[in-house]
Amino acid sequence: MKSPEVFMVRGSPVSKTPNGLPLYRQLAEDLKSLMHKGTLRGGDRMPSIRKLTQAQKVSPATVMQAYSVLENEGLIEAKPKSGFYVKIQTTRLPPVPSVTQPSRIPQRVQVCELVERMYRDSNQGFEVDLGAACPDPELMPSERLFRIMSSEARKLGPKANTYSFPPGYEKFRREIARRSLECGVEISPDEVVVTAGAVESIHLAFTVIAKPGGIVAIETPTYFNALQSIQNLGMKALEIATSPEGGISLAGLEKALQKYKLAGCFVMSNAQNPTGTTMPDEKKKALVELLAKYRVPLIEDDVNGDIYFGASRPIVCKAFDKSGTVILCNSYSKTISPGFRVGWIIPGAYQRQVENLKFITTAGSSLLLQATLAEFLRNGGYDRHLRGLRKHFFEQVNSMSQSIARYFPAGTRITRPQGGTVLWIELPESIDSISLYERALKNGISICPGPLFSGGKGQFKNFIRIACGYQHTPKVDKALRTLGQLAGGSIVGGEKNGVPNGI
Amino acid sequence: MKSPEVFMVRGSPVSKTPNGLPLYRQLAEDLKSLMHKGTLRGGDRMPSIRKLTQAQKVSPATVMQAYSVLENEGLIEAKPKSGFYVKIQTTRLPPVPSVTQPSRIPQRVQVCELVERMYRDSNQGFEVDLGAACPDPELMPSERLFRIMSSEARKLGPKANTYSFPPGYEKFRREIARRSLECGVEISPDEVVVTAGAVESIHLAFTVIAKPGGIVAIETPTYFNALQSIQNLGMKALEIATSPEGGISLAGLEKALQKYKLAGCFVMSNAQNPTGTTMPDEKKKALVELLAKYRVPLIEDDVNGDIYFGASRPIVCKAFDKSGTVILCNSYSKTISPGFRVGWIIPGAYQRQVENLKFITTAGSSLLLQATLAEFLRNGGYDRHLRGLRKHFFEQVNSMSQSIARYFPAGTRITRPQGGTVLWIELPESIDSISLYERALKNGISICPGPLFSGGKGQFKNFIRIACGYQHTPKVDKALRTLGQLAGGSIVGGEKNGVPNGI
Repeated sequence: MKSPEVFMVRGSPVSKTPNGLPLYRQLAEDLKSLMHKGTLRGGDRMPSIRKLTQAQKVSPATVMQAYSVLENEGLIEAKPKSGFYVKIQTTRLPPVPSVTQPSRIPQRVQVCELVERMYRDSNQGFEVDLGAACPDPELMPSERLFRIMSSEARKLGPKANTYSFPPGYEKFRREIARRSLECGVEISPDEVVVTAGAVESIHLAFTVIAKPGGIVAIETPTYFNALQSIQNLGMKALEIATSPEGGISLAGLEKALQKYKLAGCFVMSNAQNPTGTTMPDEKKKALVELLAKYRVPLIEDDVNGDIYFGASRPIVCKAFDKSGTVILCNSYSKTISPGFRVGWIIPGAYQRQVENLKFITTAGSSLLLQATLAEFLRNGGYDRHLRGLRKHFFEQVNSMSQSIARYFPAGTRITRPQGGTVLWIELPESIDSISLYERALKNGISICPGPLFSGGKGQFKNFIRIACGYQHTPKVDKALRTLGQLAGGSIVGGEKNGVPNGI
Repeated sequence: MKSPEVFMVRGSPVSKTPNGLPLYRQLAEDLKSLMHKGTLRGGDRMPSIRKLTQAQKVSPATVMQAYSVLENEGLIEAKPKSGFYVKIQTTRLPPVPSVTQPSRIPQRVQVCELVERMYRDSNQGFEVDLGAACPDPELMPSERLFRIMSSEARKLGPKANTYSFPPGYEKFRREIARRSLECGVEISPDEVVVTAGAVESIHLAFTVIAKPGGIVAIETPTYFNALQSIQNLGMKALEIATSPEGGISLAGLEKALQKYKLAGCFVMSNAQNPTGTTMPDEKKKALVELLAKYRVPLIEDDVNGDIYFGASRPIVCKAFDKSGTVILCNSYSKTISPGFRVGWIIPGAYQRQVENLKFITTAGSSLLLQATLAEFLRNGGYDRHLRGLRKHFFEQVNSMSQSIARYFPAGTRITRPQGGTVLWIELPESIDSISLYERALKNGISICPGPLFSGGKGQFKNFIRIACGYQHTPKVDKALRTLGQLAGGSIVGGEKNGVPNGI
C-alpha cells in the first residue's frame, strides 16, 4: 500500500497506492479513511481545493471530483463562501429514535413533580452536568457583558436603578425588532415585550390563552417547561406524533383540530428541544395556516433559533403569521446571558394581555440588564460571538454523538440535531430512564430522563436527553462511558451498533 | 414683648417676656411659636436640655418641665438615647380620612383596567410624579451598588452569568435571614425564596393559596397589586373596614371568618399602602391567632417595614406565626434597588409550592444581582443608608402634608403615616378622583386615584394617594398647589381647614 504521492491533510501524511481506481476515487477513499480514523471530524473544514491540488500533485478537477463523491455519499457538505465541511457523520451513527404514537385523548399533565426533583438535585451540583440545557459559562461573553454593564451604569446614572414597566426598555426592544428581521419577522419595537427569560415568556403566553380544562396540542416529545405551564394552569395536553426527523405531524394535528376545540398549540420550530429538529419553511407556513384556519393560537419557542448548524438562520413560524395569533417567545439565555433572566415575547394579538399580566406578576425587568444587552447587541460583536458558539456546539453535539454511539448498548438510537445543544436518545426498551437517572446521579452525572418530555404517563420511559452545552472534555467523555455502562453497554474495544470505534 | 432673657434655638434669637406665666410655661409657648413660624419643623431635633439651660439661663428642671408640656400636647416626642424631636404636626393638620364601611359581600375585583391605564400613562413620563410609590432614584445608593456589582462580577467570573434556580443564591438568603431577626422572625436561609421583587412575591403567594372563586379578606383601602392578583386569579375580595389610624378591624374580620370559608387574608402590617398605618404588636399577634384559629393563611406584605418613622423597626405578623401559615413578602425595591427586580418571600408551610411555582413561571433570578445585594447588605452600610433615607422620607411626608393642608380645599383629610412614602387623602365628596387624575395629567402631574385601592365599585371615588418619594422641591410644591386648585381649593394667603399657613 505504498503511494507515489504523499499529501498532507491537517498535518498527517497519508499514502495512496495506484490500485486501478481512478485517481479521484482513490483520493476520495483516502479522505474517507481519514474520517474513519477521526483525523477529520464532523464540523472540520476540508482542505481547500488549491491546497489539496498542490499537496497531491493532481489537477483541481480531480480534487473537485473526489469532493463530489464525498458530497454524494453525504460525508461532506459545501457551505456558501466557506468551502467544504465534514458533515455530522449520520451514516456512521445508529438510527434516529422512532416516532412514538401518542394517545389521541387529551390528558392531564403530570410532569411537575419529576421536574421539581430534577431542579432540586441540580441545586446540589453535579460533577458532570449532562442534564440542564445550559451553555458552558466559559463559552459566554461574560467579561465583555460585565464591562458593558459598568459603562451603562455610569452612563445612565441613578436612572439605571429605576423600574422599567412593560413593555420594557425601548433601546433593547429596538435591537430585538432589528434582529427579528433575520428570522423573517417584521415588527416595530412596540410589538416586543421584555420578560424575565423565555421561561416567563412561555408561561405568560400559556396564561393568556389558558382556559380551565382547555386543550393544548403539543409536539411529543416536547420541552418540559411548556408541560409544567399546561399542568400548572389546569389545562390538558393533546400530544401530536412528532418525528425526530420531520417534526410534528400536520396530519395528526389536523385530525386533532377537527375533533377538539383547542385552546392553543405549542411548538419549537427550530432545533426543537429535545429532538433538535428544525421544521422546513414550507412546513412552518403550513402549520401557521392550518392553525389560523381553526383560529387556534400558536405559542412558538425559538430559544435555539440562533444556534443553527445549517448555512443560515432559520426563519420562524411567526414570519407567516397574518392574523396575529402566533406568540413568539425567546431569550438570549442560550447564547449570551443565562444569568441575566431577560427574555422577550412578541405576543401579536395578545400584546395588551401579555403586558398587563407581566405587570401584575413581576412588574418589569431590570433596566440595567436590558440596557446592557441592548448595547451588546448593537456594538458587542454578537454575530461574531454566535459564529464561534455555533461551531462549538456543533462540534460538541457531533463528537458526543460519536461517543454515545461507541459507549451505549446495541439498540441505542440518536438524533441528528439541526441546531441547539441537546441529543435525544432512545435506549433499548428494557432500560428505565428514571432508574438510569438515579444511578447516574450516584456517579455524579446528571441526565434528563425521557418522561420529563411528555405529559402522558409512561411515555419515553427508555429515552434520555443528553445536554452538550459543556465542552466534550475527557471528563465528560468518561461520564458518557459510565452512562453507557450503567445502561448496559459493554463497550471498550469491539464494535457497537455496527459502528467502528472512533467514528 | 421684650425679654430679659434671650436664647438661641437653631440660631434664631427668641425673646421671652415675664408676663405672669411660670417660667417653664413661657418657655413652652416660645418653643411653640418657633414651630408655628416653621423654624422648628416636624422631624427636627429639639435643642438639648443642656444647651437650652445654658442659653436661657434657667434650670434644667425648667427646661424639662417645658418639654413635658410640649410632649403632653403631642408636639414633641422623646426618642430613646436621642433626645426630643418635633412630632409630625398632626394637630395642625386636617383630620384623618374617615373609615369607610365596605360591602359585607365578597366581590369580584375590577381594578386591572384602571391600573393598566395608570402604568401605561407612567411610561410616557410625567413632569411631577406623585403617583408611583417609588423612591427618588437620587436617594438610592446606586453608585455604591454598581461598584459592588463590578467587583462581584470579577470575583464570581463566568459563574456570575449562570442560572440561579429557586430558592436562590445562598449568600443573599443568608443576609435576609440575618436581617429578619430585626423584625422578629427567626428563620434559616433555607426558608427564604428569592423572587423578582415583592410584586412577584405577592403574586406567588396568592397563586399558591388560590382557589377558583375563593374569597380573600383584605384591608380597604389596600395595595392595588394585591387586588390585581386577586382579580387575575379569578378570586373574590371581601373588604374589611380599615381605619387609617388603627388598621384592619379584627371584629370585622372575625365576622367574615364566621360567615365565609376564606382562602386567605392579605395585609400590610407596617406602613400600610396607602394609609401609612402600622399595626401595634398586640394587634399583629391577635390577627395571626385569629386567622390561625380558622386555618386561614395570611399573606403579609412588609415592603415598607424598613421605612418606619418611630424609634425602632416594627416587627411583622410573621413573628407570631406558629403554624407556618403566614407568607411574608418583601423586597429592597423601596430602599436600595428599585431597578434590580429582586425580592423575596418567606412562605412557611407553602415553601415547596412557592419554589416550584417560581421555577415554572420565571425559573430563577439573576445571580449577579443577588450577589450584589448580599454584599451590599453585609458590607455596604445599609443601616446607615436607611437612617438617612428614613429621615428624608419622614421630612418629605411631613412637609408635603403641610402643603396639602394649605393648598387643598376645605374638607380635605390627610393620613398621619407611621412609615413609608405615601399620603392617603380624602377630598370633599363632590370631587371625582379619576377626573382629577385626568386633569392633573394634562398638567404633567400624576397621582393615584382612590378607586385603585378597592375591589368594590365606586369606593374611594373622592380619595387620592400622593407619593412623597421624590424630594419636596419648589417644583413639587407648585404641583401640589396646582392639584389643590384642580380639586377646588382657593388657597394663597388666608387660612385653610383652620390651619394657619406655613404649618
